[in-house]
Amino acid sequence: MKTVTQMGKDALKAKRAIAVLTAKDKDKLLTDCAKALRDNWGSIISANEADLENAKANGLKPSLIDRLMLSKDRIYAMADGLEQIADLPDPIGRFENMKTLPNGLIVGQKRVPMGVIGIIYEARPNVTSDAFGLCIKAGSAVILRGGKEAINSNKAVVSLFKAVIRAMGIDENIVQLVEDTSRESAAQMMKMNGYIDVLIPRGGSGLIQSVVLNSAVPVIETGVGNCHVFADESADVDMAVDIIVNAKAQRPGVCNAAETFLVHKNIADRLLPPAVSALRKKGVEIRGDERVRLVIPDAKPAEEEDWAAEYLDLILAVKVVDSIDEAIDHITKYSTGHSECIISESYENTQRFLNEIDSAAVYVNASTRFTDGNEFGFGAEIGISTQKLHARGPMGLKELTTTKYVIYGNGQVRK
Amino acid sequence: MKTVTQMGKDALKAKRAIAVLTAKDKDKLLTDCAKALRDNWGSIISANEADLENAKANGLKPSLIDRLMLSKDRIYAMADGLEQIADLPDPIGRFENMKTLPNGLIVGQKRVPMGVIGIIYEARPNVTSDAFGLCIKAGSAVILRGGKEAINSNKAVVSLFKAVIRAMGIDENIVQLVEDTSRESAAQMMKMNGYIDVLIPRGGSGLIQSVVLNSAVPVIETGVGNCHVFADESADVDMAVDIIVNAKAQRPGVCNAAETFLVHKNIADRLLPPAVSALRKKGVEIRGDERVRLVIPDAKPAEEEDWAAEYLDLILAVKVVDSIDEAIDHITKYSTGHSECIISESYENTQRFLNEIDSAAVYVNASTRFTDGNEFGFGAEIGISTQKLHARGPMGLKELTTTKYVIYGNGQVRK
Repeated sequence: MKTVTQMGKDALKAKRAIAVLTAKDKDKLLTDCAKALRDNWGSIISANEADLENAKANGLKPSLIDRLMLSKDRIYAMADGLEQIADLPDPIGRFENMKTLPNGLIVGQKRVPMGVIGIIYEARPNVTSDAFGLCIKAGSAVILRGGKEAINSNKAVVSLFKAVIRAMGIDENIVQLVEDTSRESAAQMMKMNGYIDVLIPRGGSGLIQSVVLNSAVPVIETGVGNCHVFADESADVDMAVDIIVNAKAQRPGVCNAAETFLVHKNIADRLLPPAVSALRKKGVEIRGDERVRLVIPDAKPAEEEDWAAEYLDLILAVKVVDSIDEAIDHITKYSTGHSECIISESYENTQRFLNEIDSAAVYVNASTRFTDGNEFGFGAEIGISTQKLHARGPMGLKELTTTKYVIYGNGQVRK
Repeated sequence: MKTVTQMGKDALKAKRAIAVLTAKDKDKLLTDCAKALRDNWGSIISANEADLENAKANGLKPSLIDRLMLSKDRIYAMADGLEQIADLPDPIGRFENMKTLPNGLIVGQKRVPMGVIGIIYEARPNVTSDAFGLCIKAGSAVILRGGKEAINSNKAVVSLFKAVIRAMGIDENIVQLVEDTSRESAAQMMKMNGYIDVLIPRGGSGLIQSVVLNSAVPVIETGVGNCHVFADESADVDMAVDIIVNAKAQRPGVCNAAETFLVHKNIADRLLPPAVSALRKKGVEIRGDERVRLVIPDAKPAEEEDWAAEYLDLILAVKVVDSIDEAIDHITKYSTGHSECIISESYENTQRFLNEIDSAAVYVNASTRFTDGNEFGFGAEIGISTQKLHARGPMGLKELTTTKYVIYGNGQVRK
């Protein structure tokens, strides 16, 4: 089994091989990999069955087993994903801000690959294919370190990709899978400054926090979303009901789902009964503060930890607030900086909310569920950044690249 | 003495106060601070004298004492710097990529402040004023942690700024100085996720590496430059001499100065004698490999560590290479990713160098000394990023800001 350090060294060589590929070559590689997935779906299923058996033997939760499980349809969807990435415009090679300085130097920024991207993720084998496709299209070598639960599936997928890469005469180390799935291998990746240019963790908040706190390699923090919807006193009641039901219940297990509903005291009596009724029809459990329970007496009492929770489940914390100021203060205190929404007909309050809420995506009168690269029209998404450096919000191909300054002179020296 | 943790809490409040200031208010604040520096230069000098006495008592090197020393001229130059920053366009509030989606949602990115910026730096008191000016103009609260050598000077400068801020009725915690200059206070700052949005180290490579390796807060790595100049076989000899002399000797103590000179074997006999002669006239010591010493027998032999050294001094490592490939390989192995230059009349080789060298600034036929925010026309510079995330190369005001997505809807929910 190759060591992580050796993988870093091999990636340093391979990044030069991938960086010089034309857009056409990269797209052919991705479409050939898509074909390889479809042609060999049966062998991937076999590998996946070994993972599923281990998972059951280890008592993995049914929801995790569902994430882990591949089917012919899911493998075809992975192939479709690679083809969609191939169809996107190449993010590499554009020149930006090119200008001639008074001394005749021509200076500008060229969009170039990151170099080597590390992805640390959990049990979903489709991430292996998606992350590979996005990193390759962005011109970088990629080191994939998936969870131990999916190791057989991941090995099967990556070995298909490597066969395609070799057949095109390209250095197969443009993609490498860390087969050692111990904590140590992840910890090693986090110290590989000089080899790995950026680490992107994808998965639950435990994984993400561990990488953010321990990595010496620059990290893009993704995805933890304690998202808020605030219904102001002037909110349209029907719109507020539609939005909170959609934001909470349309797909509760994802990071852009709402977790807390803040309701202005002057609309609580009118809004809470229809909202809670509609939410409960979708199976949502309500946890309310005291003032919510005056209106909805059978709501479970909310505890302090409910305000900070990312449930990723059919549970909603609900609080009555006195004013937009209290709503903004509450969100500022508990938000993870992902997505927040105000429902309001007040011009002033919508402007204040847009200005004062410090999150990656701030909504007026729309569901937080739209924070998504595909919904925003990027065509593909590697994750949703909740940090402020480099990328914030949904990240597409461009966010997987960097720039360098190129300077054309004819003998200029500095005075 | 306020704890660093308390400073973080106070900065969280203060960032809301600075974020809502208009461009006009921020510019008035900066010009008033400039005036306060000029009006009170005598009191700053007194504080600086205390620092200088301590420095001498502690046996600080003369070059560091020079960096630490303030004069009326240097204080006026700090004031000029603040006024120049006030004159720059406000980086905050611009909308980018605003578009209407098919479902009617209006989505775009608004340029917004980072929030709280931490700067960890060493003995130069002028950084206190420069970093304050840039962060305030960029709409962020700033926590400054300078070196212990300059603590009295820094306290004098920051207390003048705080008086101006209070006089304008603004929360004075938009700037805070960490008065505890122990290693612990820097280490604490590096763990203040949720309070500090970005840390920028400014100083020597020891400081920068310590912050890069130990910080859980996102970091922008700045400034270490083992810069290379490569004279290709087709180089114009006169141009090559001018460029290497300028790149090495015009100001050897800065990060964009050249440290290694690579010379193609087919031009070594013609180029090395005039280049070395001109360099030695500037007081430069030559450390050459064996093939250099065949041409320049009295050059000191270069050791392995010379190829990796950032001398920041009048010393130059010189190596003869067989080809552009060897030059690119050497640079790829030893470069810190700052600035590299090819001197060549070959179209193909200049294109290869521009494409294959993975550094923040890649030059054809010009001195590496131009890698500088002012030279590139940014008007101000917080440092030169040698990392690939967020910013690469000289960083101006824009690189001290971030964006957030703003979404205007009228009841949209996700299907």
